[in-house]
Amino acid sequence: MKVEYINPFILATRKVLSTMAFVDSKPSKPYLKPEDNQQALGVISAVIELSGESKGSIAVSFSKNCILDVASQMFGDQYTELNEEVIDIVGELVNMISGEARRELAKLGFHFSAGIPITFKGEGHEMKHFVQARIIVIPFETKSGQYFIEACFDSKKFLEG
Amino acid sequence: MKVEYINPFILATRKVLSTMAFVDSKPSKPYLKPEDNQQALGVISAVIELSGESKGSIAVSFSKNCILDVASQMFGDQYTELNEEVIDIVGELVNMISGEARRELAKLGFHFSAGIPITFKGEGHEMKHFVQARIIVIPFETKSGQYFIEACFDSKKFLEG
Repeated sequence: MKVEYINPFILATRKVLSTMAFVDSKPSKPYLKPEDNQQALGVISAVIELSGESKGSIAVSFSKNCILDVASQMFGDQYTELNEEVIDIVGELVNMISGEARRELAKLGFHFSAGIPITFKGEGHEMKHFVQARIIVIPFETKSGQYFIEACFDSKKFLEG
Repeated sequence: MKVEYINPFILATRKVLSTMAFVDSKPSKPYLKPEDNQQALGVISAVIELSGESKGSIAVSFSKNCILDVASQMFGDQYTELNEEVIDIVGELVNMISGEARRELAKLGFHFSAGIPITFKGEGHEMKHFVQARIIVIPFETKSGQYFIEACFDSKKFLEG
């Protein structure tokens, strides 16, 4: 995947987390997820379908400490467990990240529309993308732990440029 | 427009404003915008294209006091003017409202995907929807003033049930 197509996802994710939750995140090097591994990298996740330029989806998956800190920062309350409210927040975050990333991608001439977030919870839960294709993982580090973005698109043109 | 199709927009809007900005809003009776009137009802607005069940768009338009209060509540800073940051917030709000409303509409069997927000600013600015159709306005009252949701869809089936 060409770096100019990955950058919009990185920029969008950092912007949403910093704007909405005042949480700084540092991206590490993106990598391809092993083909037979459909397991989420975090314990709470949300995936959203994208269509247009190509078909695919993006997902965000948080470690427990990280999402509890993000939720607490966003709403000023102290969250201590992965309840329904926290699940909703993860859905809302992937919706916002998708909006920001699509705005950046549109500047490069790639137009996508988005579905509605689907959320998952639980240690080692499955992560269901919308197409069968290689998954690119972007790990992010925050002061409260890790989270991950996954991008999965069926178009070689979009992925490989 | 059947009340069961308007309700998801009302519920979504109230939920987003109360969750994200701790702002309660009271909806008034929806009405049809006069056909020759393309003027926004507030001074800062964002519109987002929806497609799927039918083609159309929803928009949100805020009075100045109302959006400054919403922005201040969301971020803890005191906003006093309609700067770039506030414009971004309006775009983000319509993205979140669209996500919530589409989630509710999906429960009724209506599936929509969403584009990216387009923002407008200025007294009496034009409000550009994505299809030529009658526009339904839902006014909301908050302690800091009014804002408005507009919904504009080209399908009689979706609008009239």
